[in-house]
Amino acid sequence: MADYKAPLRDIDFVLKDFLNCEQHYAGLTGCEELGADLMDAIIGEGAKFAENVVNPIAASGDEQGCQYVDGKVTTPSGFKEAFRQWGEGGWQTLGIPVAAGGQGLPSSLGSVIGEMVGAPSWAFSMYGGLALAPVTCLLNGGTEEQKQRYLPKLLSGEWAGTMCLTEAHCGSDVGLLRTKASKNDDGTYTLQGTKIFISGGEQDMTDNIIHAILARVEGAPAGTKGISLFIAPKYWVDEDGAMGEFNNINCGAIEKKMGLKASATCVMNYDGARAVLLGEENRGLEIMFKLMNAARLGTALQGLAMGEMAYQGAVSYARDRLQMRSLTGPKNPNGPADPIMVHPDVRRMLLTQKAFVEGQRGLIYWLAQQVDLSQFGSEEQQAEAGQLLELLTPIAKAFCTETAQEVTYLGVQVFGGHGYISDNGMERIARDNRISTVYEGTTGIQALDLIGRKVLGSGGSVLRNFTKIVHKYCEANKDNAQLAEFIAPLVLLNKEWGEVTMAVGEKAMADADEVGAASVDYLMYSGYVVFAFLWAQMAEVAQQKLDSGMDDPLYHGKLKTARFYFQRLLPRTASHKAAMLAGAAGLMGMAEEEFIC
Amino acid sequence: MADYKAPLRDIDFVLKDFLNCEQHYAGLTGCEELGADLMDAIIGEGAKFAENVVNPIAASGDEQGCQYVDGKVTTPSGFKEAFRQWGEGGWQTLGIPVAAGGQGLPSSLGSVIGEMVGAPSWAFSMYGGLALAPVTCLLNGGTEEQKQRYLPKLLSGEWAGTMCLTEAHCGSDVGLLRTKASKNDDGTYTLQGTKIFISGGEQDMTDNIIHAILARVEGAPAGTKGISLFIAPKYWVDEDGAMGEFNNINCGAIEKKMGLKASATCVMNYDGARAVLLGEENRGLEIMFKLMNAARLGTALQGLAMGEMAYQGAVSYARDRLQMRSLTGPKNPNGPADPIMVHPDVRRMLLTQKAFVEGQRGLIYWLAQQVDLSQFGSEEQQAEAGQLLELLTPIAKAFCTETAQEVTYLGVQVFGGHGYISDNGMERIARDNRISTVYEGTTGIQALDLIGRKVLGSGGSVLRNFTKIVHKYCEANKDNAQLAEFIAPLVLLNKEWGEVTMAVGEKAMADADEVGAASVDYLMYSGYVVFAFLWAQMAEVAQQKLDSGMDDPLYHGKLKTARFYFQRLLPRTASHKAAMLAGAAGLMGMAEEEFIC
Repeated sequence: MADYKAPLRDIDFVLKDFLNCEQHYAGLTGCEELGADLMDAIIGEGAKFAENVVNPIAASGDEQGCQYVDGKVTTPSGFKEAFRQWGEGGWQTLGIPVAAGGQGLPSSLGSVIGEMVGAPSWAFSMYGGLALAPVTCLLNGGTEEQKQRYLPKLLSGEWAGTMCLTEAHCGSDVGLLRTKASKNDDGTYTLQGTKIFISGGEQDMTDNIIHAILARVEGAPAGTKGISLFIAPKYWVDEDGAMGEFNNINCGAIEKKMGLKASATCVMNYDGARAVLLGEENRGLEIMFKLMNAARLGTALQGLAMGEMAYQGAVSYARDRLQMRSLTGPKNPNGPADPIMVHPDVRRMLLTQKAFVEGQRGLIYWLAQQVDLSQFGSEEQQAEAGQLLELLTPIAKAFCTETAQEVTYLGVQVFGGHGYISDNGMERIARDNRISTVYEGTTGIQALDLIGRKVLGSGGSVLRNFTKIVHKYCEANKDNAQLAEFIAPLVLLNKEWGEVTMAVGEKAMADADEVGAASVDYLMYSGYVVFAFLWAQMAEVAQQKLDSGMDDPLYHGKLKTARFYFQRLLPRTASHKAAMLAGAAGLMGMAEEEFIC
Repeated sequence: MADYKAPLRDIDFVLKDFLNCEQHYAGLTGCEELGADLMDAIIGEGAKFAENVVNPIAASGDEQGCQYVDGKVTTPSGFKEAFRQWGEGGWQTLGIPVAAGGQGLPSSLGSVIGEMVGAPSWAFSMYGGLALAPVTCLLNGGTEEQKQRYLPKLLSGEWAGTMCLTEAHCGSDVGLLRTKASKNDDGTYTLQGTKIFISGGEQDMTDNIIHAILARVEGAPAGTKGISLFIAPKYWVDEDGAMGEFNNINCGAIEKKMGLKASATCVMNYDGARAVLLGEENRGLEIMFKLMNAARLGTALQGLAMGEMAYQGAVSYARDRLQMRSLTGPKNPNGPADPIMVHPDVRRMLLTQKAFVEGQRGLIYWLAQQVDLSQFGSEEQQAEAGQLLELLTPIAKAFCTETAQEVTYLGVQVFGGHGYISDNGMERIARDNRISTVYEGTTGIQALDLIGRKVLGSGGSVLRNFTKIVHKYCEANKDNAQLAEFIAPLVLLNKEWGEVTMAVGEKAMADADEVGAASVDYLMYSGYVVFAFLWAQMAEVAQQKLDSGMDDPLYHGKLKTARFYFQRLLPRTASHKAAMLAGAAGLMGMAEEEFIC
């Protein structure tokens, strides 16, 4: 299978040419020293880690999977050693404040590392990603004593962690959760219950596992108002950080699943486990929800990472595979056939992949900068970034992962029958990626968040603030003839976006189901418009570079990909518009027995 | 996981209400006795076989997969016994002429059985399906002696068979094949070479395996003009049908692949295997291509079958799974939450599945009737059916399998995280189905066949003959107010279909790459229009039944699903139209190094 090669040139384009990251970092309090050299060095080391440490264990990790015997989980060969190197390399501490023992680097840099390390094996990267769950909970809701107790070894990679939320009967609907916590005389709590789908709930890579667990204290209110957040380690940790006895947290099974087989998805039983409360009783969700935006952007990143792998594989195969002659006559006359790259439909598939992958990278890295600003920026910057993130996080999560399904689907398709064969890697990527539209909130959940809570919930203002930014951009570039092919359709769609929002909003006042009926098509429509905004800007930058005499294939390719996006993919807004305006009656009017008779 | 339940009521609707199959069969020479009672009996028995024999081995078959040791392949538990029952039940002979030892039933009935038996385990159904490859080759190109020699045990299920075409360097481009045949003094040939992706190339279910193999006789012309078709059994078969020695056909490996794990995908080595020629030297493709239309409709059927499984599972889960409250207030106030069926977006997903699955069934069964007519009809009927099949077979193959990807995707999505878990079956269906847009000609190959060979190749006449049929239907129903919501858009699209064809055709005269650049979007566009024609007719039938006082949920559901299709799915023609008219320049203008720098 094609080996992963970190797309450093495209990352460089997005960070430096498009997002002016040097200027961005220079303006962030505490990050001023993150100049181009340091940044390049960190990204270069991340690329090496991804290519040399993670890539070699990716395919074998899928093939071996995790093994479960008598409560113990064995991870695939090489995972333990790779995780050790991950910890030793300091990768776990990248975005953690210096005061908490981290490197204090901005979160946007973490996204770049996350993309690269996740691309060859998302399953591997999940162990480090999930270790950040208790870390973030502690940083957001822990006392100084609690931080001292758990953070050092979580950050060194000697311990890992989990986020324990889902129960068998309770996924999207967290208010239904039943895991019980009863308070002990010493101030700790005792947990009873069972969680499912706990990534890294048990593994053989680290000495201890620190679980962040949502549970309901005895006597607490029903629903989401009675949920508390606890830290419970696999082996008890004393106040001084020393590891003690086994804490009655048992892994009952691991799931057989479609992909991510090297990531252990565990059923976890708390059979009287001791736990410490984070923050106050019944206010656990407030702390946990602060994880949520990061987790959603992290899942968008999975779509990007898997898509990049599929794109690299497909381009490489299309260059090498000889099959049929070009419709316009042989292009490889001395060979038995032409490389399939000559066939227009193969190029359509590759350009679809490229337009989505690079659009995703543009969006996610841009939003990661907004996260930087929301943490380190001025008060005004924080407010602006916060509004952008509110609107764009559900779009990024759902739109990047949905379009990534198409990208990984096309990876298999370009390979033809060979794409279906495990050795070639494409089918693994499609399987690994399939969960991304599901976990951390399904596409349906993101869509309801977008249109219900964010757009209509703000009376439209959260959307208007964004369409104004787009409008301003279009105004500023309306006389640029070179960009007219991008700006003209963007102007129309930006206006139409407001109109369809009004139309859905009006119907929703009469019937709340209209929100749900429009939601996913509304989200997809919005995603295509946001990508158009990004592609227009990336085309502008590429055009400027070309105009300035930098005759680089990257800039030519970028401009042509923008054109492809506008001509071939953006018209999908028309179908999503029609579908979202079709209304709820056609959905809700089906009697249950009319689905299957 | 949800067990398969044959959708007998919907099958009944399509066959009897929509396609008037009783009248259809009564008019077929040799099939006059296939009345409703006999048909119901056969379909009922097929349903039992699917539910009671195939369904129980479906999930375990995927889990166990096929095992390869030292040239031998072991199929999963129960497969051998199920195949024995398949043979004993006479299912292998259904559509085979009475004169050749079959039951002489029309091919359309075989499609119904094929859907039902394939739905729980397409992998199982492939063994019987591939056994038909040498059977069909023999019927089309074999001498009487050859038929006598191989057919009886192929039809009894004691032997199975394969179709051996693909080589490592030669998939879509069959002209590149290298397997060599040299003629022996006794008139037989000796084969040397290696084939890959041979389904059922080796297995432990039958006493012998009869391979239909494409190879090149020494000295034959290069390319497709030098390909001959051979029959070579695993164990030699004498003229009297007696089994002899092992014939040096070795299985070198089986592929690890994304799905269909219970179907052995074999690397086959012919190490001096003896073979007999079918028909004349260098004319093997003529015989083999007669298989192709049936294989393409058979693959369309896979999309339908997998989609039906995914739809059944999703509806059942949506009824049972309690999560969140309805946006318009609790619908299950005494329970902890509402069934997810109350959520508009879940209904959107279910209706998308239903509209595609039932549209596929309508199209495929209709085309299967055309196959009947092309075999048993009057001369005029044969000609008409032939033209319809020419146009609609590539559409059925590619559009049914592409939309089936969406259906099986949504099966996982409705289940949420539980859809990713193997026990629930949804992920297996998605994996099994993934190959359907690839084998028997990828979507890209079908699209080129449609627009290049069929539509433009006939100067548009093959399309015009069909749009005239649609036009006539619309004219006949233009005053039916109840159908106006379907007829009005169909009229417009039917006209537009001709226009976009003209537009692409004109561009293609200047540049052949324009054909490829438009091809897949053209095919998808065409598929949506064809489905609109079918859904309009199915809505008409349902409306008539309701008007006649048959107040049946099936008819209500059918009418509402037609409405959903027109409102929510048909608008996708707009994006495919824009994409197909975008032209080739944007694709072909990319320099190779601009894809990845």
